[in-house]
Amino acid sequence: MTTLIDGNVHAAALRARTKARAEAFAAHHGRQPRLDVVIVGDHPASRAYVRTKTRMAHETAIDGRLIELPETVTAEALLAEIARLNADPTVDGILVQLPLPGHLDGQMMIGAIHPDKDVDGFHPLNVGKLYTATKIDPERMLIPCTPLGSLMMLHDTLGPKGLAGKAAVVVGRSNIVGKPMAQLLLANDCTVTTAHSRTGDLPAVCREADILVAAVGRPEMVRGDWIKPGAVVIDVGINRVPTEDGKGRIVGDVATAEAMGRAAHITPVPGGVGKMTVACLLHNTVVAAQARAELV
Amino acid sequence: MTTLIDGNVHAAALRARTKARAEAFAAHHGRQPRLDVVIVGDHPASRAYVRTKTRMAHETAIDGRLIELPETVTAEALLAEIARLNADPTVDGILVQLPLPGHLDGQMMIGAIHPDKDVDGFHPLNVGKLYTATKIDPERMLIPCTPLGSLMMLHDTLGPKGLAGKAAVVVGRSNIVGKPMAQLLLANDCTVTTAHSRTGDLPAVCREADILVAAVGRPEMVRGDWIKPGAVVIDVGINRVPTEDGKGRIVGDVATAEAMGRAAHITPVPGGVGKMTVACLLHNTVVAAQARAELV
Ligand SMILES: NC(=O)c1ccc[n+]([C@@H]2O[C@H](COP(=O)([O-])OP(=O)(O)OC[C@H]3O[C@@H](n4cnc5c(N)ncnc54)[C@H](OP(=O)(O)O)[C@@H]3O)[C@@H](O)[C@H]2O)c1
Ligand SMILES: NC(=O)c1ccc[n+]([C@@H]2O[C@H](COP(=O)([O-])OP(=O)(O)OC[C@H]3O[C@@H](n4cnc5c(N)ncnc54)[C@H](OP(=O)(O)O)[C@@H]3O)[C@@H](O)[C@H]2O)c1
Repeated sequence: MTTLIDGNVHAAALRARTKARAEAFAAHHGRQPRLDVVIVGDHPASRAYVRTKTRMAHETAIDGRLIELPETVTAEALLAEIARLNADPTVDGILVQLPLPGHLDGQMMIGAIHPDKDVDGFHPLNVGKLYTATKIDPERMLIPCTPLGSLMMLHDTLGPKGLAGKAAVVVGRSNIVGKPMAQLLLANDCTVTTAHSRTGDLPAVCREADILVAAVGRPEMVRGDWIKPGAVVIDVGINRVPTEDGKGRIVGDVATAEAMGRAAHITPVPGGVGKMTVACLLHNTVVAAQARAELV
Repeated sequence: MTTLIDGNVHAAALRARTKARAEAFAAHHGRQPRLDVVIVGDHPASRAYVRTKTRMAHETAIDGRLIELPETVTAEALLAEIARLNADPTVDGILVQLPLPGHLDGQMMIGAIHPDKDVDGFHPLNVGKLYTATKIDPERMLIPCTPLGSLMMLHDTLGPKGLAGKAAVVVGRSNIVGKPMAQLLLANDCTVTTAHSRTGDLPAVCREADILVAAVGRPEMVRGDWIKPGAVVIDVGINRVPTEDGKGRIVGDVATAEAMGRAAHITPVPGGVGKMTVACLLHNTVVAAQARAELV
């Protein structure tokens, strides 16, 4: 029997807790926690995604704002916008939606965000804190949203101490998902293997995993027989594949139908990790707001 | 046949290159690259170690200085000393020897060093840069010395592209050795597993390793039959064990005698990784000096 880990349920619970904290913050400080999302150009998927972020913010008692800049914005103008948001004391969280158009350097823009307002957790200083922390504390640190959401679902599924000693395999090593995910699993006392496109026998590596995280971006690449019976599978992938009716369909990096009956628990796509990503962004915004208020 | 990877030879070659660069720097800038090593208290092993660092610096045309502070120095006084070195434009590298006495917070002191002068590569900003870099460049980044030295020996042993696709296992997850080592191996396209004290079947995990790095601090814990035939073994451990004559003896984390005949290549202890650590510190000092000179 395979249980689906319902991202909607987990995310709704996290958003409810976050909303209560946001309301308490507003009652105490006379303003809502504020999140400013900067989007450059009009990549349709990115635009839909940032609209979801600001809408969810509003539903969570967070003042979510969208700053839309033209595709042709210069690096100087974008840096000036980030500097303005850094300097504005009412802005708690700044997010620059990636990917950026080719003439803009994403890593440079992330490095320009004040680390205390970096609610994506991508600034090198926050990355360094994540890697050197003796204790990972999502109430005090800004941790990348997708890995954090995945970890929270693992904690809920296995119990807070249930990860210790487990063999975890992360397929993918991006800065956004794979690497921080591996670090969170390591900090939770898993024995952690990171695999990627240069890995030799990927199916064999995956078969060792008590906890398998797929963050690859290849539709249903992880087959059922790559999964160790009884494993917990976190499917981070979001891939659009064509369908006969032309509408297309979203699938993960795992062949979910094949995984049913083998995995003990699996996150579905859609309705899994993706839901937690946005909820964690709002969580991080409140964490940033509270930390900044303490500093004053 | 097992080949010993001779740390003395590798370190001498790196120091010779570093010395030539330090001399060129001095010719161009009218002063040697400068490294200030701060030591608190009189832990005998630490004192011997920092003396080696400054002596090797002098032999490498680097102006190595030792700043000795009493065991009782306050956090404020140590921070003031670090601030003074940060502000001194003739200081290129600052190293605060760890461990510090119990009343001083090592992570706080490391965070106080200017990242551009952090030749140990332990500042969170440098850690974050290491984890997010698209390309690991030891000429442009400040990378922790022991993992960097280990990587250089692996490159020399396997060829610069020889690590790609290999299964690497790092036993140990400290901020000083294990974690940055795993990141360097990952960036070199190994499939990387990090193991530690909570790992279930450690011998079985080690037996999968084409490249095995032991950074544990337990004398000869890794037995011969934990080693995959033909593996490359990097033994980071430095452990003093008692001998009948009372003098004691230094051994690594690997039972080297048992590894002979199984491993293809192994670093001896002493005379292996330890030699490279100091050479990499001097390398980092010249890298820091050059980067700072470019900024002016
Ligand atoms: N649920 C969410 O909220 C959320 C958030 C972010 C991303 N995602 C989704 O998660 C997936 C990964 O995102 P990302 O940003 O991490 O992607 P990415 O930056 O493209 O990284 C993909 C990783 O997968 C590895 N890979 C590619 N092909 C492989 C293969 N055949 N075998 C093994 N490994 C392979 C790559 O290895 P190399 O490093 O060797 O190239 C790389 O490390 C995408 O589908 C993305 O849409 C979802
Ligand atoms: N050659 C050099 O220049 C150089 C430089 C630095 C260090 N060293 C030597 O390298 C060794 C490690 O140094 P370090 O600073 O990384 O030490 P550390 O901070 O004490 O870390 C030791 C690591 O080993 C793990 N470990 C301990 N017992 C274990 C066991 N029974 N099975 C599996 N893993 C175990 C620990 O796991 P947990 O995290 O679960 O506790 C920890 O992650 C020491 O011998 C040190 O003297 C040498």
